[in-house]
Amino acid sequence: MSNAPTEQANRLDRRKARTRAALIRAAQTLIAEGRTNVPILEITQAADVGMGSFYNHFETKEQLFEAALEAVMDGYGQLLDALTADIEDPAEVFACSFRLTGRLYRREPELSLVLLNNVLRLLSADNGLAPRARRDIAAAVDAGRFTVEDLDVAVTMTAGALLALGQLLHNQPERDVEETTDRVTEDLLRMFGVQRRQAHRICSLPLPDIDAVRGDGSAA
Amino acid sequence: MSNAPTEQANRLDRRKARTRAALIRAAQTLIAEGRTNVPILEITQAADVGMGSFYNHFETKEQLFEAALEAVMDGYGQLLDALTADIEDPAEVFACSFRLTGRLYRREPELSLVLLNNVLRLLSADNGLAPRARRDIAAAVDAGRFTVEDLDVAVTMTAGALLALGQLLHNQPERDVEETTDRVTEDLLRMFGVQRRQAHRICSLPLPDIDAVRGDGSAA
Repeated sequence: MSNAPTEQANRLDRRKARTRAALIRAAQTLIAEGRTNVPILEITQAADVGMGSFYNHFETKEQLFEAALEAVMDGYGQLLDALTADIEDPAEVFACSFRLTGRLYRREPELSLVLLNNVLRLLSADNGLAPRARRDIAAAVDAGRFTVEDLDVAVTMTAGALLALGQLLHNQPERDVEETTDRVTEDLLRMFGVQRRQAHRICSLPLPDIDAVRGDGSAA
Repeated sequence: MSNAPTEQANRLDRRKARTRAALIRAAQTLIAEGRTNVPILEITQAADVGMGSFYNHFETKEQLFEAALEAVMDGYGQLLDALTADIEDPAEVFACSFRLTGRLYRREPELSLVLLNNVLRLLSADNGLAPRARRDIAAAVDAGRFTVEDLDVAVTMTAGALLALGQLLHNQPERDVEETTDRVTEDLLRMFGVQRRQAHRICSLPLPDIDAVRGDGSAA
């Protein structure tokens, strides 16, 4: 009996969490379709929740899309962690993650366009790709593989490279995504003090199969 | 007598050019003030031209702001050309231009925010900074100073670095602009195959005085 109020509170919490998750899923679908310009009513209808409950969770549409993007990025970051778990050289971990991420620009063009417009904001996010890039670069510095004097600058250059790579691939649809991404990754490794020949070797290693882990190959 | 229609046409052309220039100047002022969100009426009033004449020159407000930005960038590019005209080593020309440009983020914060949102679009512009970066990098490659296999990638990485640098300086207002910009420039030189010690030397050289050429230190 004494548990009843708590159970009721838990039920409420669970329902709130379900509503929030439904809104985020709807926003992710809209992002993947490149349709972030829709009215809030259309989002709540897609999520099958009341229009009013939107404002219990988010103040603006932009806030929802940001939360949705961060959730996508965090999920993608966890995927990268799983794919690189067995790689011992931290320089290879960094390179492998970047090479896989660059390839997404052709696999998920709609999502990528939204990413292009948000990479810099995501750079200062607490979860997702930026803290993972920071962790991987720091590990490579600790292992004596990278020579980096300012970790913030290194993370920033990585985000800038990812952003610019996306724009280049977008501007030149015929450009080879694998060759270009691997070249940019090599450039980053050279920037971090890896010798040219070694950087080339690292960026020529076979990549883990992202579809094997992911299953359906979808973004969210 | 036979010249009359031509003269009239010339007069019309000159008036059209004056109207266009007035609109672009008004847009540049709004950009510098960070007020690109104003209605078209306010732009034409600031330019002292009729509301209707706006559409003789531009289809949308965005088109006007893009033209205004490109004109700013082209003017700034000409300034950089003048400032680096006496430098013989093309690697130094590239570094000097990048080091001066990074410093703008603190000197012109309002303009920089607009730049941050447009760097990637400006990357594919026909005039302004991108073709100058391409020219300088190509010259350094020709002189055997840079080792770059894909010029598009090198220009793209430069733009990405500039963009990411601006975001870092924006996120961390207390960060030293000179030290950070010079570090990013050094990173770019290393990426382009310049040895670490030499890159550091190039990025420690005294810079030309931008105010001496510019006069008033304003952006446009």
